[in-house]
Amino acid sequence: MRKFEEKTLTTEKIFDGKIISVQVDEVKLPDGNVSKREIVKHPGAVAVIPVTSDGKIIFVEQFRKPLDRSLIEIPAGKIELDEAPEVTAKRELEEETGYTTDTLTYVTSFFTSPGFSNEIIHIYFTDQLQKLKNEVACDEDEFIELIELTLPEAEQYMTDKLIYDAKTVYAIAYLKLLGMR
Amino acid sequence: MRKFEEKTLTTEKIFDGKIISVQVDEVKLPDGNVSKREIVKHPGAVAVIPVTSDGKIIFVEQFRKPLDRSLIEIPAGKIELDEAPEVTAKRELEEETGYTTDTLTYVTSFFTSPGFSNEIIHIYFTDQLQKLKNEVACDEDEFIELIELTLPEAEQYMTDKLIYDAKTVYAIAYLKLLGMR
Repeated sequence: MRKFEEKTLTTEKIFDGKIISVQVDEVKLPDGNVSKREIVKHPGAVAVIPVTSDGKIIFVEQFRKPLDRSLIEIPAGKIELDEAPEVTAKRELEEETGYTTDTLTYVTSFFTSPGFSNEIIHIYFTDQLQKLKNEVACDEDEFIELIELTLPEAEQYMTDKLIYDAKTVYAIAYLKLLGMR
Repeated sequence: MRKFEEKTLTTEKIFDGKIISVQVDEVKLPDGNVSKREIVKHPGAVAVIPVTSDGKIIFVEQFRKPLDRSLIEIPAGKIELDEAPEVTAKRELEEETGYTTDTLTYVTSFFTSPGFSNEIIHIYFTDQLQKLKNEVACDEDEFIELIELTLPEAEQYMTDKLIYDAKTVYAIAYLKLLGMR
């Protein structure tokens, strides 16, 4: 898919952080003019839609500094170097919820903000959860709280703007399409 | 929603661009430790799910420099200063598709990447389109091509990873939940 390709003329590195890096590319447009593109590079992420044996969805509440508020989201995390997405999915499920699974079903993937970032998120589903005997530690700067909700409760949380991010709003639509009630 | 609040200790401005700005906040965590948060600020965006009178969805194909490829997406654009989202929605629909509407239905909003960005996208739906008599110009650095697809065709495009971004993948789930075929 190279339609309307923009050729890179120069790349200016702006920032190289722990999670993201930022650059400004000068590009040649299809009409020959020159423009600039602001680009945030991200290693990619994985999310899991975990459903318990009694039909509840497990969410995590956490503070999101870019919004200066907390959100209720499905478990997720960024892909570590050379890690397969399924491995990230299982690891984040274990770290954030205390459950594990041997059966992750791939749901879909999407770029979250293709206008300025290459971040992609891969989404998995499981309704085959086993409680871990020993808790796995989260990242040391990660503070989360688990919340189990039925689908109608989750929809109410969406209406109340407590569930309010792309992957989690998508997860709710996905479960409705699966026929969950 | 202030659970697990992270208090800002310092803010380091990194970049102030045309579309995004970047900063690193030093924050005090709930346990008293100090950590850093990399934050991309964005003015927010709006997208429209436009369905024609013969039941086709209008998409736009455009090159996305952060991915170095083109994507097929629902029409969208960023909110200009002090612009109401409904105004952005109508403007982007007109600029990108050559159609207008008087009936936009609000669907949902979501933060695209709450881990590192405050970007929010507001999504609207319309199946009441009128062709504009005079074309409205796109931004001068914007090159797009219109594609009309039935819902099954759009789902195939998703499988083929030509439709591959959060708002458009969500739009397809939304139309399926509406009962569109």
